[in-house]
Amino acid sequence: MTLDSQNMLQVIKDFPKQCREALGLPKGISASGKINNIVIAGMGGSAMGGDLLKIYLSNTNIPVYVNRDYKVPNFVDENSLVFAVSYSGNTEETLSALNAAKEKKAQIIGITSGGKLAEECEKVVNIPSGLQPRAALGYLFFPMLGILHNTNIIRVKNDELNEMMGILKQTNKFNEQGEELSKKLKEKIPIIYASEALGAIAFRWKTQINENAKMPAFYNVFSEMNHNEIAGYKSMDHKFSVVMILDKNDNDRVKKRMNICKEIMEEYVEVEEVETQGESLLARMFSAIYLGDYVSYYMALWNRVDPSPVDIIEGMKKKLM
Amino acid sequence: MTLDSQNMLQVIKDFPKQCREALGLPKGISASGKINNIVIAGMGGSAMGGDLLKIYLSNTNIPVYVNRDYKVPNFVDENSLVFAVSYSGNTEETLSALNAAKEKKAQIIGITSGGKLAEECEKVVNIPSGLQPRAALGYLFFPMLGILHNTNIIRVKNDELNEMMGILKQTNKFNEQGEELSKKLKEKIPIIYASEALGAIAFRWKTQINENAKMPAFYNVFSEMNHNEIAGYKSMDHKFSVVMILDKNDNDRVKKRMNICKEIMEEYVEVEEVETQGESLLARMFSAIYLGDYVSYYMALWNRVDPSPVDIIEGMKKKLM
Repeated sequence: MTLDSQNMLQVIKDFPKQCREALGLPKGISASGKINNIVIAGMGGSAMGGDLLKIYLSNTNIPVYVNRDYKVPNFVDENSLVFAVSYSGNTEETLSALNAAKEKKAQIIGITSGGKLAEECEKVVNIPSGLQPRAALGYLFFPMLGILHNTNIIRVKNDELNEMMGILKQTNKFNEQGEELSKKLKEKIPIIYASEALGAIAFRWKTQINENAKMPAFYNVFSEMNHNEIAGYKSMDHKFSVVMILDKNDNDRVKKRMNICKEIMEEYVEVEEVETQGESLLARMFSAIYLGDYVSYYMALWNRVDPSPVDIIEGMKKKLM
Repeated sequence: MTLDSQNMLQVIKDFPKQCREALGLPKGISASGKINNIVIAGMGGSAMGGDLLKIYLSNTNIPVYVNRDYKVPNFVDENSLVFAVSYSGNTEETLSALNAAKEKKAQIIGITSGGKLAEECEKVVNIPSGLQPRAALGYLFFPMLGILHNTNIIRVKNDELNEMMGILKQTNKFNEQGEELSKKLKEKIPIIYASEALGAIAFRWKTQINENAKMPAFYNVFSEMNHNEIAGYKSMDHKFSVVMILDKNDNDRVKKRMNICKEIMEEYVEVEEVETQGESLLARMFSAIYLGDYVSYYMALWNRVDPSPVDIIEGMKKKLM
């Protein structure tokens, strides 16, 4: 284990602390005026924070749009709240979308550790630098939650935060469970599934395996995959392995579909199941995310790669200049 | 080649005719009142029509939401136009979403060949039955376009329809190009890429390969995949093969990203490129879709399976009853 891989492990272990710290960062920052919709402009880990916000706001009436693009949707106007999120502050797609949002006179709040984004946003939540963006998900997500709370768009209850923190603090348990599951996925190409409602969590697992373990991984959601992807299992071989993320609040029919699919899939591949923990949505979301972070970390070790650097992505950025 | 596989080939060959016929189906049907957003409730091929509508409306100010779920988003209200789309008319997710939309007093228009959906919608576009839903994409998409045209929400120009039809009618060319490309993908697991704007076209290829060829296939979009999935290529092997769908209107930076990624990917897998054809959006969308339909058809033949029936999906539906 190199210093770098130790470093990633430590950052994962510190994730509960990061979440607690992140909750305090947007103090005194809020949006104002009428807000008809919320757009999160970001890429990779920064967009992921937007996906999580979309899940969290799914019980409200506010449409949420996660924007992974150089432009913003045409419907963005002065009654749109746009979170421009880039860990480095220099993500070119996000800076381009920020300009587009400015032209449309949207309300804009930046979330970044610095870079051009910090310079170009009047309102900004400054988050600590020095991490891999994907390891900064707490910093990238909770400030948005806090701002919406400060703006009275949502009311985040202390109870739900406390429940989430209580569960995340059981770091050793996640570490052990993650290591154990990672062994079952050794040398496999994982396909991660969750319900439509929690699809972003499955996507997080996929991207963490891509970036930490430098391995292919894919994801999809129930029940859409029942209508097409499942037919491909007929030619699936044991190189693949399936992980299903189950949630107690999944629709009963989705639960039944997952059970039936598990039976079908097990004719071709191994299927592992993991469950979200806790009662509140935040606890359920972040317990599953946290487990996936450990799984991807250990998959890097079994794949004999350093989980931290992503040479291909850095090399690509240089060629793009 | 069995009768059934011949049948699928004939249905693909007839696709241009289907599109022309589908354009006439919504005659006299329109929505009324104020429309703030459009929701397409459907699954599989029926949701795909919604994805295409979302692409087509991306230049308007109307937010479009494709709903692959048992419920509809909370923001749906009496100023929402909900297309409830199910080829069979008995898709349980869509019927459930339809009920949810009714409770919210949305304006609802059904698109179906029959079933409960036809009974439960006051306004309905009846489309011909007897096809595999995925082979009925023309019937599932163009009626929505016609209704929005009838409602004066968009103006579909004859020029763009004529251009699209002119290109699609070159069936033999698509057939040949599709067969040729399919040979390069023989025994490979394809990963299909397009720009964010045309991501649904890449998704269509993926699902057609899943259902017609009964093979695994995956998809992703540029530039989001630059931020995570590309890192997984480090452990990618020649079992996989990449197809990039290029569009002349792709953002210049996206074009550059695609070129750089092609170079990176070619260290690990073979990469094929295909281009959309024509000037108008409809022509570009449907030319790429049509090629993918032929590719998936021939991949079924090389995989020695009948492209038409999807036993796994049908078996699953029975178990769900």
